[in-house]
Amino acid sequence: MAVLVKNGKIVNHDRSFKADVLCVDGKIVEVGENIQAPENCQVIDATDRLVIPGGIDTHTHMQLPFMGTYAVDDFHTGTRAALSGGTTMICDFVLGGKGTSLIDNFKQWKSWADPKVMCDFTFHMGITWWSEQIREEMSKIASEYGVNSFKTFMAYKDVFMLEDDEMLECYRHAAGIGALAMVHAENGHIIDRESKRMVAEGVTGPEGHEMCRPEHVEAEATQRACVIADTVNCPIYVVHVMSKSAGKVVSEMRRDGKVVFGEPIAASLGTDGTNYWHKCWRHAAAHVMGPPLRPDPSTPKILMKQLACGELECTGTDNCTFNGNQKALGKDDFRKIPNGVNGVEDRMGVIWTKGVHSGIMDENRFVAVTSTNAAKVFNMYPQKGIIQVGSDADLVVWNPDRSRNISKDTHHQAVDWNIFEGMEIHGIAEKVISRGVLAYEHDGDFFHVEQGHGKFVPRQPYSEYVYSRIRQREKFYKPQKVEREPYTGPVIKLPQ
Amino acid sequence: MAVLVKNGKIVNHDRSFKADVLCVDGKIVEVGENIQAPENCQVIDATDRLVIPGGIDTHTHMQLPFMGTYAVDDFHTGTRAALSGGTTMICDFVLGGKGTSLIDNFKQWKSWADPKVMCDFTFHMGITWWSEQIREEMSKIASEYGVNSFKTFMAYKDVFMLEDDEMLECYRHAAGIGALAMVHAENGHIIDRESKRMVAEGVTGPEGHEMCRPEHVEAEATQRACVIADTVNCPIYVVHVMSKSAGKVVSEMRRDGKVVFGEPIAASLGTDGTNYWHKCWRHAAAHVMGPPLRPDPSTPKILMKQLACGELECTGTDNCTFNGNQKALGKDDFRKIPNGVNGVEDRMGVIWTKGVHSGIMDENRFVAVTSTNAAKVFNMYPQKGIIQVGSDADLVVWNPDRSRNISKDTHHQAVDWNIFEGMEIHGIAEKVISRGVLAYEHDGDFFHVEQGHGKFVPRQPYSEYVYSRIRQREKFYKPQKVEREPYTGPVIKLPQ
Amino acid sequence: MAVLVKNGKIVNHDRSFKADVLCVDGKIVEVGENIQAPENCQVIDATDRLVIPGGIDTHTHMQLPFMGTYAVDDFHTGTRAALSGGTTMICDFVLGGKGTSLIDNFKQWKSWADPKVMCDFTFHMGITWWSEQIREEMSKIASEYGVNSFKTFMAYKDVFMLEDDEMLECYRHAAGIGALAMVHAENGHIIDRESKRMVAEGVTGPEGHEMCRPEHVEAEATQRACVIADTVNCPIYVVHVMSKSAGKVVSEMRRDGKVVFGEPIAASLGTDGTNYWHKCWRHAAAHVMGPPLRPDPSTPKILMKQLACGELECTGTDNCTFNGNQKALGKDDFRKIPNGVNGVEDRMGVIWTKGVHSGIMDENRFVAVTSTNAAKVFNMYPQKGIIQVGSDADLVVWNPDRSRNISKDTHHQAVDWNIFEGMEIHGIAEKVISRGVLAYEHDGDFFHVEQGHGKFVPRQPYSEYVYSRIRQREKFYKPQKVEREPYTGPVIKLPQ
Amino acid sequence: MAVLVKNGKIVNHDRSFKADVLCVDGKIVEVGENIQAPENCQVIDATDRLVIPGGIDTHTHMQLPFMGTYAVDDFHTGTRAALSGGTTMICDFVLGGKGTSLIDNFKQWKSWADPKVMCDFTFHMGITWWSEQIREEMSKIASEYGVNSFKTFMAYKDVFMLEDDEMLECYRHAAGIGALAMVHAENGHIIDRESKRMVAEGVTGPEGHEMCRPEHVEAEATQRACVIADTVNCPIYVVHVMSKSAGKVVSEMRRDGKVVFGEPIAASLGTDGTNYWHKCWRHAAAHVMGPPLRPDPSTPKILMKQLACGELECTGTDNCTFNGNQKALGKDDFRKIPNGVNGVEDRMGVIWTKGVHSGIMDENRFVAVTSTNAAKVFNMYPQKGIIQVGSDADLVVWNPDRSRNISKDTHHQAVDWNIFEGMEIHGIAEKVISRGVLAYEHDGDFFHVEQGHGKFVPRQPYSEYVYSRIRQREKFYKPQKVEREPYTGPVIKLPQ
Repeated sequence: MAVLVKNGKIVNHDRSFKADVLCVDGKIVEVGENIQAPENCQVIDATDRLVIPGGIDTHTHMQLPFMGTYAVDDFHTGTRAALSGGTTMICDFVLGGKGTSLIDNFKQWKSWADPKVMCDFTFHMGITWWSEQIREEMSKIASEYGVNSFKTFMAYKDVFMLEDDEMLECYRHAAGIGALAMVHAENGHIIDRESKRMVAEGVTGPEGHEMCRPEHVEAEATQRACVIADTVNCPIYVVHVMSKSAGKVVSEMRRDGKVVFGEPIAASLGTDGTNYWHKCWRHAAAHVMGPPLRPDPSTPKILMKQLACGELECTGTDNCTFNGNQKALGKDDFRKIPNGVNGVEDRMGVIWTKGVHSGIMDENRFVAVTSTNAAKVFNMYPQKGIIQVGSDADLVVWNPDRSRNISKDTHHQAVDWNIFEGMEIHGIAEKVISRGVLAYEHDGDFFHVEQGHGKFVPRQPYSEYVYSRIRQREKFYKPQKVEREPYTGPVIKLPQ
Repeated sequence: MAVLVKNGKIVNHDRSFKADVLCVDGKIVEVGENIQAPENCQVIDATDRLVIPGGIDTHTHMQLPFMGTYAVDDFHTGTRAALSGGTTMICDFVLGGKGTSLIDNFKQWKSWADPKVMCDFTFHMGITWWSEQIREEMSKIASEYGVNSFKTFMAYKDVFMLEDDEMLECYRHAAGIGALAMVHAENGHIIDRESKRMVAEGVTGPEGHEMCRPEHVEAEATQRACVIADTVNCPIYVVHVMSKSAGKVVSEMRRDGKVVFGEPIAASLGTDGTNYWHKCWRHAAAHVMGPPLRPDPSTPKILMKQLACGELECTGTDNCTFNGNQKALGKDDFRKIPNGVNGVEDRMGVIWTKGVHSGIMDENRFVAVTSTNAAKVFNMYPQKGIIQVGSDADLVVWNPDRSRNISKDTHHQAVDWNIFEGMEIHGIAEKVISRGVLAYEHDGDFFHVEQGHGKFVPRQPYSEYVYSRIRQREKFYKPQKVEREPYTGPVIKLPQ
Repeated sequence: MAVLVKNGKIVNHDRSFKADVLCVDGKIVEVGENIQAPENCQVIDATDRLVIPGGIDTHTHMQLPFMGTYAVDDFHTGTRAALSGGTTMICDFVLGGKGTSLIDNFKQWKSWADPKVMCDFTFHMGITWWSEQIREEMSKIASEYGVNSFKTFMAYKDVFMLEDDEMLECYRHAAGIGALAMVHAENGHIIDRESKRMVAEGVTGPEGHEMCRPEHVEAEATQRACVIADTVNCPIYVVHVMSKSAGKVVSEMRRDGKVVFGEPIAASLGTDGTNYWHKCWRHAAAHVMGPPLRPDPSTPKILMKQLACGELECTGTDNCTFNGNQKALGKDDFRKIPNGVNGVEDRMGVIWTKGVHSGIMDENRFVAVTSTNAAKVFNMYPQKGIIQVGSDADLVVWNPDRSRNISKDTHHQAVDWNIFEGMEIHGIAEKVISRGVLAYEHDGDFFHVEQGHGKFVPRQPYSEYVYSRIRQREKFYKPQKVEREPYTGPVIKLPQ
Repeated sequence: MAVLVKNGKIVNHDRSFKADVLCVDGKIVEVGENIQAPENCQVIDATDRLVIPGGIDTHTHMQLPFMGTYAVDDFHTGTRAALSGGTTMICDFVLGGKGTSLIDNFKQWKSWADPKVMCDFTFHMGITWWSEQIREEMSKIASEYGVNSFKTFMAYKDVFMLEDDEMLECYRHAAGIGALAMVHAENGHIIDRESKRMVAEGVTGPEGHEMCRPEHVEAEATQRACVIADTVNCPIYVVHVMSKSAGKVVSEMRRDGKVVFGEPIAASLGTDGTNYWHKCWRHAAAHVMGPPLRPDPSTPKILMKQLACGELECTGTDNCTFNGNQKALGKDDFRKIPNGVNGVEDRMGVIWTKGVHSGIMDENRFVAVTSTNAAKVFNMYPQKGIIQVGSDADLVVWNPDRSRNISKDTHHQAVDWNIFEGMEIHGIAEKVISRGVLAYEHDGDFFHVEQGHGKFVPRQPYSEYVYSRIRQREKFYKPQKVEREPYTGPVIKLPQ
């Protein structure tokens, strides 16, 4: 099975250049000028187009069971939508509750995904309680199941939340097995009390969701998580950076030399929390997620600039979609609105529009933040994230000169709303190649692959990109005692 | 009983001017030029001297029972030393353990202090556990016992520490009774684990005390405390700001409009944590306190600049002195070293030297940060903290042109070391007037008052300086719900 | 002539308290409870009102000759409007062009003001060129004419602008005579070129005025001015801080220990630069001033917070009003629009509304930033800026519970527009006492004083508030050479 | 001519991997495992070694004529020393005085370099005056002579310095021809006056050099340069970032989206300005350069952290060496000390030691900041800066496990001192390949190439890495006028 992409401008994270790309059996086998198509090879013309590595969405929750219901975008519709937007891989979260087994959970999620996925995927594991069993399962998951990233929650008290001392234990163990700690950073104690107070004071609508967890609640926890991780010399990845103050914490930690990565998402880069004040309840409720979007309208641009200059690392979506009628479970109490927004389809377009088209980042940084950096951080590079010989043939023919308008009526996701409704997007994924196959064509809206086309991508621990400094610091910062003469002077006697 | 201070330059927080000051029966009754001495009036010549309001040390622990022993400076030697350095009032902490009664503790401490104090004093209360009893006692203490400031601990796990949700409750209640929340800001979970690890790795000396709680452990907790307090619209006072990063948190919170106050201490303004690496164990151990002094030698100057420009508010000492033989309890394990340093005697001189003499702050700001601001924050202004008619006659004839060297051999404290040993101090408290009486003369080292001379100063809740903005914010930031049509659309049915 | 203000709450910069105030012959002679009115004394009831020191507007340009025309608010209408808003003193700029004499200019301006002013006033001098003559006149002005503040311009190239080396000379001389350097901080080179470019590209409307001098042009110059002043150990006062980035520079300089003061104005605290994009040319043009208002709508709140927490010092208006028909001189070219906005009447109300009413600052800080700090900085304290015995009897009965709407139709200024049009103001100056006389009553809109009622307030150099640290730094930071053995080794010979 | 490097770990900017590298005729022709050596191929064993792209020193001044003498390291000894340290390319400055021709200067410098260089080189051009001639020559140099980077000076008044309006013109023109503006950022007016004052006050030693231009003089100019460049949408490269405050300016500009690059140098990363206070005049004088090293000893680590986290871009040396006897020209007046330090030989080792060995950056970031980023910024990528097929065969076998001590007695530079004297360096360039030839072997200290081995590397304008955003911004930020009805109202008549 061969595909040849001709005459495009290859855009990698480090440079752009004119070249053809030949893909055979799922791999890129040649990159160069004037490649001759082998026999039985599909030729795709990319003249005047960019050819970019397929997008990697670092953060999705397909068909997540949550609050008694399920996210409507499952591993089928979710990955189908991903492909249509230029994303060829998702990183989904295995997320069981307190008392459950990591390995059981892994198997459960994998059994859901395998038959349905239309693009490649991998998993992060949620650590929602702490015990010796979890410690041992973490080791096993990392060494045998191909997962090297574990998320802890500082919010969702009594459901997913760990306390500081549990985080310390968990992160110390993660460092010991070469894994990456991830964190949902919000102060769960504050949210717990403030959400009750908000309802008690009669603020039951979606605006209350934000008002009981304003951005300093996120910034506080972000700082705490980074300090805890640094204490045990564990690398930390902050998922869904939603506010400028949390983004600032991440950048200050990095400047200070800590091994910290921050992930804004399509939602925080593309829209804002003023939507919670929308007069239409369904509109407002659609935007409910945790941490919430922020009412300060300067937020998206500031996060985009941070992404552009290297303070933030990669981009996900936290795609976790519940239909309007599901969200309506919380019609009288925002605490009962299932949390989650869309994004898996629109992430690439939103970032191109707000980032590249607007002059904030260049096309190479776009590739870095939508694909390459994710591959590096999660130890899939250069298998993923770059167009070069030997890499997986996941690539997108991208037309920066076309535009489209986002709408729930035309999107591919199952959900019946879209937080980017009406937004004009510059940059179209005209042709999307997954595992060496032309999987999607924008013109005509053709999908050429079936459910099950995607594969699980196992990932080894000790990503060099993450652990190189950790190891050196382990040596260099080892506690050094002061050599002193033993104290032989008098000591008081304490009363017994 | 009358005292007339002639020909000095009065230095208040807002300006300096030449005037005489007449004190009668413990009060200032006249400030002006050419005041005639009444009969039987002691006349003190202050020509070429400054006359400043007596210093207020916001933070002491006289004769504190701690780790099975007692601080050696008790309410007698401690207040005697205070007077000799130009401090005419101390704010001491009533600090009982978990399960104890606030009111019992208050009475206990007061019975210790009353017969011994040589200068005025007041109390802050430590809140070391949380229950309905504590809530009620807080109300009573504030309304009936003259204490409006309550300290919580984020460190000393299992001994004094509260968890976030307890802090939320405590601060909300404090706000409800017009009290000021105070906080010891260090992450106790981290300290607990890291101190064990340090010892396990063989670092048992005083340097380990700092290494297991580096400055970001303080900065993290400072940020958290401020966010928690702001959440419940409670004013917060951060005791012993020891690091530039904690100081930065305080200043950023203030710039953001939060009602936050920061208190550096003589130790953090005058020396640094390199002492923990001293080859002499006794030297190193003398400096052990929590949070520790910081090894970055730029710390004192940065904190002094913050104090000068208004980012930090007032100054204490955390005076809590254990002799070398007491410190030696921890000769094999830094965790067993009783925590605490000196400062009550030298605070004024250290700040004058490092702050005013060096050109960082002027004499009026010196008065503000050593006296006036404390009086304002703790609701004793203008009874204390200013030289004007009607105020308490606590004042100091200060000679900025003389210098002295600090030494344990000549200081007045009971403790057998001094963290400022050998420091050249510019600025001498030549004569100290407490409650309208010449209490101390530097030349000749005469004390003219006895134990019990000082009085307890009761303080009302709702300090205007602290609560004026709190009240306005209560009105202005009240949660406002969005007025919407009730949602009448479909809602999914959850499986039972 | 006596006035007694009864039953009010006195609000000074440092505290508030219930008291009566008795004013005789222009001075405050008694402050206390239950003062008995002397004979022939006017009694003003201030029950449930605040009594505050009269406002000091640090920055006005009454009847300024500019661009061939004159500001329409002259010393009469301008000071009349000031009184009606609670301002009892203005600081106006004497501003002659290159080549003119400072002393001639001073006399010219004074001859304009003396017969017209309805409240007290003082002058700052503009230094618009540099020469030996100017140096000598500066000395004379400071020692004989009662002016100790001199403004330089970094903008208005070829008209008022000085180059860096001239600023160095000017500031060094200012430091030598105990004067305060003031600065209009914008990069004049950039404005000169960019304004031409803007017009060349067809952007001739008021929006072009901002677009050719965006906020980093102001921040750059602010930083440069502070560095230049610090280099010669001269205190510096940045007039009209208009942007958050300039405000940030000021705060960073202060935190770093430099003697820097920043002055936001009513316009930058109360409105923003989005007005330049208004579809109505007259509306947009009314807001044209230099530096311009900023389009970022978060600017006013950020500056207010800086003012509240002590990073900014006092408040002026840059009141310099040209009617719509005068502004219309620039109808085809924004460079020809006479620069200037209103504010002298509304400053107090705008700051109370946006600052105090909104919970950002308390009433005492309000007094500090509208009155006391100006008195301190410009060496008029405690003659001005405080309600205490011996001070000038300039005070305002302030009702925080009433509100009004600003409108050009009802304001007292001569100008035919108002940049705060329609704004709801909380806080009313019900009665205004100037020089011990009830000068204005809000109810009925009565003025009880005539032109010429105000007096020139001479000010001595070496304000303690400003120069105390300068003097100490002069000693402490004196360049110290390293003592070395003279170098006696070989030296190469240069070719002749 | 073929060289095969076997069994090493290739370290590129984006990842590390085990591979062999085959170089033929100066180019890399194969990178992979188990490459077979062709005939007549030199095989180099790199087992347990890293193989990194040859270093690029972005900033040298070989044999610079300055202050009447010449730098002693010429294009021969300088490039020879470069090779021995692992640097295979230098970027030298063509630097003529006011009134000279760029093209003449270019030819002059090239005639000096061509016959002497032992490694590749390119030029930046200094713009030391402004005129129509210079404008035209800039265009010609960029289009015909292979130079796309032009440096302006804000210091060296009357010698090299441009004023702000000249910089505006120069940068606007640079943007128009696709060139990169570079800047020496120090306020020349301040230096001019302060250096005179310092000498007048008797501070004539090397410490005076720093004292008359402290770090805010650098930070100020850095900010100004960035604002000027941004104003005309020109990319800007700040050479020799010497202070934490200048570094902070660069990072803030980048975060704000400006196209700014910062270059720390070996000296600012490896030592500090306390050396100016050294008692030995020759020692102190050796460190004299402009801008000076900073006395704050935290500077090198802070700059290194900025380099690690992406705030600073690439690294040079400002290598410009004058022997002790030449420096002695300024024995009685620091202003006469020829400015310049060494670094071309030791840069790679210093950065590895202080950056990688200490755990601040990983080996890939090391490659980025010592080589790759320079290649990108100056438009030589991927010809230079990466080990991949088609790139120039400049590479280094690097042994991170060996160490050496720097000494003037053993270094290869001509100069008779070394600012890193005695420093223990981790990381040795064991074998250095330049243009496909084994040029240097550390063991035995063998050089295998002759003078003239290196070649001039011409560089095209419009580097994508630099200009991609510039172009997009040109479109996106084009000034947009507000469409309004023409103003038809009245206008005042000005007096004629």
